[in-house]
Amino acid sequence: MSITLIKEHRCHSGRMAYYSHGSDAVNGEMKFGVYFPPQADRGEKLPVLTYLAGLTCNEETFLIKGGAQQYAAKHGLILVAPDTSPRGAGIEGEDDDWDFGTGAGFYINATRGAWAKNYCMESYVTQDLQAVIKDSLNADMDRQGIFGHSMGGHGALTLGFKYPEIYKSISAFAPICSPTFCPWGAKAFSGYIGSDHSVWKQHDAVELIRAMDKSQYKPVLVDQGLADEFLNEQLKPHLLEKVAAETGFPLTLRFQEGYDHSYYFMNTFMEDHIAHHAEALGCS
Amino acid sequence: MSITLIKEHRCHSGRMAYYSHGSDAVNGEMKFGVYFPPQADRGEKLPVLTYLAGLTCNEETFLIKGGAQQYAAKHGLILVAPDTSPRGAGIEGEDDDWDFGTGAGFYINATRGAWAKNYCMESYVTQDLQAVIKDSLNADMDRQGIFGHSMGGHGALTLGFKYPEIYKSISAFAPICSPTFCPWGAKAFSGYIGSDHSVWKQHDAVELIRAMDKSQYKPVLVDQGLADEFLNEQLKPHLLEKVAAETGFPLTLRFQEGYDHSYYFMNTFMEDHIAHHAEALGCS
Repeated sequence: MSITLIKEHRCHSGRMAYYSHGSDAVNGEMKFGVYFPPQADRGEKLPVLTYLAGLTCNEETFLIKGGAQQYAAKHGLILVAPDTSPRGAGIEGEDDDWDFGTGAGFYINATRGAWAKNYCMESYVTQDLQAVIKDSLNADMDRQGIFGHSMGGHGALTLGFKYPEIYKSISAFAPICSPTFCPWGAKAFSGYIGSDHSVWKQHDAVELIRAMDKSQYKPVLVDQGLADEFLNEQLKPHLLEKVAAETGFPLTLRFQEGYDHSYYFMNTFMEDHIAHHAEALGCS
Repeated sequence: MSITLIKEHRCHSGRMAYYSHGSDAVNGEMKFGVYFPPQADRGEKLPVLTYLAGLTCNEETFLIKGGAQQYAAKHGLILVAPDTSPRGAGIEGEDDDWDFGTGAGFYINATRGAWAKNYCMESYVTQDLQAVIKDSLNADMDRQGIFGHSMGGHGALTLGFKYPEIYKSISAFAPICSPTFCPWGAKAFSGYIGSDHSVWKQHDAVELIRAMDKSQYKPVLVDQGLADEFLNEQLKPHLLEKVAAETGFPLTLRFQEGYDHSYYFMNTFMEDHIAHHAEALGCS
């Protein structure tokens, strides 16, 4: 799959690069950002950590605000950050809401109406983006992790659980833990995949843990700010905590006093998340 | 001088806060951002490092992209980041260009035409913002530093040189070293203060070093990317290098291979700049 370099910047002795490429999954062009740590320019095949961003974000948000590059440089991790939805698919209503349509792909494959043709972010991330990583980034495909924030935290947990053959390490910042039981999730899932809750559960981190074989368990790190304005209505970390306690799932859920939903929160705990993945992926 | 809190976020065990306040210098409202390191909430009177941003930026840019908070937290420094110009002054042509008017105050006091009433960023930074810091931030006013990027690098160098009684430490990223001899500077100075080059030289870092008494010398750190797209036409670091060599001014000018003009560059070397100020201001 061919990619086009949009722009490049030197950063922490490595390289930031932004690319575009055609995607079959979304029937259109997608963009993503990459941080190549300095080890990449020495020809080493490096592990890859994919970051999924939250509502309204794009492929640049995390790479501008997250402060992860310095730690990726230290551990020799490639960072990959895709956009959060197709752009300009031309579907009626696509740009009407900030929590549905553009910037709000929810990392699932739409099956409903016009959305089904373009809004297939699950296939995009796990197939097309994987193909691009394999073909173009000189990556060690057997050492990959996934993490994300809010809607992207939901994406990281659910895709991490559903595709253990791809993702060997998982973490999340302030994830939507159970989209089935929150307004954001209900709105997105209704619109993209219809009203059947048994289908919703296939894309719900809490339900995926409940159904998971213990042989699939791996340590998951989640940070959640206690001053997060979306804590109780949308994110519901207590549901994650509960299912982990009931099943014995190895969840490290850290409640952080005073922190909100912003990138100031994420930036603060980024070092720990990168270290979590670096350890799981066998980095130095 | 009273200030109004706009928003607040916990960050690296300290606090980000954004404020607005009325300013006599610019005859209108100004905004600025502050990072209070954790030591501030323990009641310590801490040193202050003011950051001046570049063209098109505002009070948030550096605090979102710079990655300085973690180092300010380490050293116990308060970071203060003002906006780059008045906003909405209502002057004809104010929003026409990205390098003049809104977002392009150039840290001088306009004397020409309608600009003189509002575009007085030198007085804003050195008087009104100082009054606000003194009255509202519980700061050690005798331990202050200044730094900045591009237009803000010019501002940090020139205000640092002109107000040694305020600023005890100075550094810059990719500064406009000699606005007298570059298109950005010529445009801004012509528009704000007229065509008299002897007046321009009062706001030109190279000329200020040339005229400076050696008793005023203090170590200045400047980082400049060698892939900076504005290097030769606008920034002209060789003029700074030359005057420092001629006068014996203690300049540390580091040329960084491959780095451009972006915040990816600044983020990379932020730790060194914060350490430079922390040492000069007697932080731990």
